[in-house]
Amino acid sequence: MHVELYKIPQGGPDDVSGLDRLIQDGKLNPADIVALLGKTEGNGCVNDFTRGYAVQTLKHYLSGHIGADAASQLVYVMSGGTEGVLSPHLNVFTRSQRPDLPQRWGLVMGVAHTRDFTADEVGTVAMVKIVAEAVMGAIAQAGLEPDNVHFVQIKCPLVPAAQSAEQRSSYQSMALSRGASALGIALALGEITPEQVPAAAICHNYSLYSGRASTSAGVELKNCEIFVLGNAAHATGSLLVGHDVMAHALDADAVTRALNSTGQPNGEIINVFAKAEADPGGYVVGRRHTMLDDSDISHTR
Amino acid sequence: MHVELYKIPQGGPDDVSGLDRLIQDGKLNPADIVALLGKTEGNGCVNDFTRGYAVQTLKHYLSGHIGADAASQLVYVMSGGTEGVLSPHLNVFTRSQRPDLPQRWGLVMGVAHTRDFTADEVGTVAMVKIVAEAVMGAIAQAGLEPDNVHFVQIKCPLVPAAQSAEQRSSYQSMALSRGASALGIALALGEITPEQVPAAAICHNYSLYSGRASTSAGVELKNCEIFVLGNAAHATGSLLVGHDVMAHALDADAVTRALNSTGQPNGEIINVFAKAEADPGGYVVGRRHTMLDDSDISHTR
Amino acid sequence: MHVELYKIPQGGPDDVSGLDRLIQDGKLNPADIVALLGKTEGNGCVNDFTRGYAVQTLKHYLSGHIGADAASQLVYVMSGGTEGVLSPHLNVFTRSQRPDLPQRWGLVMGVAHTRDFTADEVGTVAMVKIVAEAVMGAIAQAGLEPDNVHFVQIKCPLVPAAQSAEQRSSYQSMALSRGASALGIALALGEITPEQVPAAAICHNYSLYSGRASTSAGVELKNCEIFVLGNAAHATGSLLVGHDVMAHALDADAVTRALNSTGQPNGEIINVFAKAEADPGGYVVGRRHTMLDDSDISHTR
Amino acid sequence: MHVELYKIPQGGPDDVSGLDRLIQDGKLNPADIVALLGKTEGNGCVNDFTRGYAVQTLKHYLSGHIGADAASQLVYVMSGGTEGVLSPHLNVFTRSQRPDLPQRWGLVMGVAHTRDFTADEVGTVAMVKIVAEAVMGAIAQAGLEPDNVHFVQIKCPLVPAAQSAEQRSSYQSMALSRGASALGIALALGEITPEQVPAAAICHNYSLYSGRASTSAGVELKNCEIFVLGNAAHATGSLLVGHDVMAHALDADAVTRALNSTGQPNGEIINVFAKAEADPGGYVVGRRHTMLDDSDISHTR
Repeated sequence: MHVELYKIPQGGPDDVSGLDRLIQDGKLNPADIVALLGKTEGNGCVNDFTRGYAVQTLKHYLSGHIGADAASQLVYVMSGGTEGVLSPHLNVFTRSQRPDLPQRWGLVMGVAHTRDFTADEVGTVAMVKIVAEAVMGAIAQAGLEPDNVHFVQIKCPLVPAAQSAEQRSSYQSMALSRGASALGIALALGEITPEQVPAAAICHNYSLYSGRASTSAGVELKNCEIFVLGNAAHATGSLLVGHDVMAHALDADAVTRALNSTGQPNGEIINVFAKAEADPGGYVVGRRHTMLDDSDISHTR
Repeated sequence: MHVELYKIPQGGPDDVSGLDRLIQDGKLNPADIVALLGKTEGNGCVNDFTRGYAVQTLKHYLSGHIGADAASQLVYVMSGGTEGVLSPHLNVFTRSQRPDLPQRWGLVMGVAHTRDFTADEVGTVAMVKIVAEAVMGAIAQAGLEPDNVHFVQIKCPLVPAAQSAEQRSSYQSMALSRGASALGIALALGEITPEQVPAAAICHNYSLYSGRASTSAGVELKNCEIFVLGNAAHATGSLLVGHDVMAHALDADAVTRALNSTGQPNGEIINVFAKAEADPGGYVVGRRHTMLDDSDISHTR
Repeated sequence: MHVELYKIPQGGPDDVSGLDRLIQDGKLNPADIVALLGKTEGNGCVNDFTRGYAVQTLKHYLSGHIGADAASQLVYVMSGGTEGVLSPHLNVFTRSQRPDLPQRWGLVMGVAHTRDFTADEVGTVAMVKIVAEAVMGAIAQAGLEPDNVHFVQIKCPLVPAAQSAEQRSSYQSMALSRGASALGIALALGEITPEQVPAAAICHNYSLYSGRASTSAGVELKNCEIFVLGNAAHATGSLLVGHDVMAHALDADAVTRALNSTGQPNGEIINVFAKAEADPGGYVVGRRHTMLDDSDISHTR
Repeated sequence: MHVELYKIPQGGPDDVSGLDRLIQDGKLNPADIVALLGKTEGNGCVNDFTRGYAVQTLKHYLSGHIGADAASQLVYVMSGGTEGVLSPHLNVFTRSQRPDLPQRWGLVMGVAHTRDFTADEVGTVAMVKIVAEAVMGAIAQAGLEPDNVHFVQIKCPLVPAAQSAEQRSSYQSMALSRGASALGIALALGEITPEQVPAAAICHNYSLYSGRASTSAGVELKNCEIFVLGNAAHATGSLLVGHDVMAHALDADAVTRALNSTGQPNGEIINVFAKAEADPGGYVVGRRHTMLDDSDISHTR
């Protein structure tokens, strides 16, 4: 399996010029694309429409190259929020067979889609299980051992408050959808057992978690779109993936541990996919932070 | 009882120049002040420090006129949020005896303070009851019949997330503190009975409410500060108060009803104290509103 | 000329279900559409991508009905900002010939597009003149006398800071583009003369203005898209348009004057297109407002 | 000269409990305080009242220890903005004579106040010159050579839009006040000459700058309050100061250079005073950033 990652700067959520150039120049075969992971310049919260805008633009563009059906089968994960030094860009993953190249230990990937979830299912044990099955499917598709999985990305739905039968806020729905998806990953990777996930545990029992999950919710989809990255012996490309868990927002050692986990700590870094949050206890390394009480800037930013 | 209301524009949360001018000119006797109700230019949410800044400034200023003890006994209700056409200003209520003037049906007022609440008590049935008792005290102090009470204002505490044993967010604490305070008013006014308020009802059973309550939470106090306005026969001033409940954000008829409820609908309007919220159902007069899902501007603004 | 206005609620910037239902039900002929004026749920400022998202969605949808060329010739004016009681919706204007109906004094409309502007031209006297010519073209197309024009809407470009040769901020570009467009309208309507508009006057000389202009800037276009509404004798529909200028944000009398200007002040109101701003002098009816100094919420909101 | 720095966490802008504990415990003599540099939890922009609130609280508290006159003579520099991992805290600098200790190369400091500036003077060449003189006074007071100055901090005024004769926005005033203050520092340190600073250069000619200036504007003062830090042979404490200029927001090498410039790169770090901005060109290390066009979060945050 030959996996390549193309990192493409974007001038806006509807900018496909960089991707188009690669395709026009013959450097990227659109038929090989399996997943597109974008960082868009919206607020990353409930009313972030840059995600849907980017997906609509990409689907429309790719339909012209590979047909509407194939374009709708890809995994699109758009995540908003490019405050500070983050720059809006697109990560395009391609997967192909290169029997001409020697096999070596390296990056392989698998993708999966779940069925659509109803508003009532989002954030439930049922969602956890359906996600876990889909993640296991993606792992199998990649030809990976669970222990060699380093990163599972899920784009999951959020239910706007107006559609919530239980009068959940949009933020609560966002949290529950991401929490259930992450526990689905943990279940698929053997980090937790099914018995450990009663409904009350989701978003409440913080001792249950996955060290390899990244989940992001959006109004622009109703199912979960999933991709799995790991290292295996049947790779033919030059990429490797590693990971680690940060204990807190200033845990720089985790970066070193993640680099070491690739087996090639001195290699060139292509991209870093990091997921963080304001510490829910209100402190970073023993000092009070103000993110939870900032009513002007949501702590998720 | 002679009640006067002085409406004083402010150049900032620490601007007491207008109040000082009235006092220096002999138009307002600082010893007669019983309550100060300010609209300050903070965000009105959790991290709004303009409320505390204004209270600190006023207490310090008034201490110079009436002593620190008397200054600390007044009711200070600072409420943030002057978006749009609201202009930062101070309402200073004075109360005095004017036996030289004839008695007439008009505005009277009473004030009260509760004891400090612990973080655990905020938002509980215990808080509801303590508030109700204090409101009844203020009504009695004013010499009012409950039916003639038109407005009860409470400034109540909010518990920042970092201090919450139950890991409540600051916003949740804000809602519970205001909800319990409002139900305390409803209880004092006979709008609900004690049996109707189990703990689970607070901020959940929306059929329980007061038509005359206005409650505002802030980090700058730990108790409730209360004032009550109503009409009675032993007034000597020229003011009257009225009220009504808005069914939705565009319910202009409620303004007419409120004017009519004063008994003098064509009189001059001195001030309007209005309290509103984004409709929690997500619709205003059958049309979707976006306030609940706006992650940039909290719906409380 | 027969002009109809369809007001269609939207569930999001990409929601064309309401428009689709009207077309499927035969109530609206897509070939008659000349302009689409939408109020979208973005911030209405520089990084509001809901406008472009809505336009992309509408163009794609209408291409399926009238072809891509015809769809790209329509006037799309998307304006962000639905804080408070504004509800996201679409106004679809159709224009057709109905020789079967009697002519009466009523609403007629014209549309126009300018050529694309370079980044350097935005906000200049050259832009004023090109806009004025296009507005005159739209007035002629409508068969209107300038005195009977009540509303001219222009969607104009804004140049993001990164593309500005003169290091203008995006906000400055937004203001200059709207200012030059509005003065182009004033010129076309005879409210000002060409000699009155030197470059230095644009956005500086506030004595030059149009009483009938509404201009809105966005990153999603490089030219100006224009539509003109007025009353004329060759109308066959039942609609009328009126207008007035508000002296300040609380000028309710302007609403009465606008209704009177239609000639039928007691008719049913279909929609109100209002344009306002935070008073640049810092006061509303003599009272300080805080909008210019609110660093959390831009005053344009 | 013996300089000590006390770093004190704060629970809010009005929290002096940490400072009070140090004084009560005899660890900090309030009579030795010369400057207080705080990081408060406001937005750091125009309507940030946490700065004034903190200063008012500190002055009131210190008046009780050293008298109102002495308390008003200190340098108070409160700077808002504690997003992310910044924690609200106070830096209290004390200065005293310790003839009992041996002199060594180490930290010394000087302070100065300018006179009040009129609204018209803020941001002008006159301000540059008055600031330069005051900075030179502080350098002399510290017994420093200009080359050994590592850090000059100025708190300068900003003129709210409503008070600006020239209709400058509050943000423009903020920039001009900081720019003129920084050029005053550059002039005092010999980094530029007086001839290089015509009025048009302030905030426009970016080739003129100081490598050692940090300036912060606020509505809470009308003059400039200044302190200067550097190393000299007549120090008796154990502290040293260093500095460097970051070429861009990711210039980590500048941190190493700053440590080296102290002469003791492996010493313990007490605090870092960093000043940054969104790159006005719109790019960080060749990649587009979105801070200048984010209408929800001002780029100064």
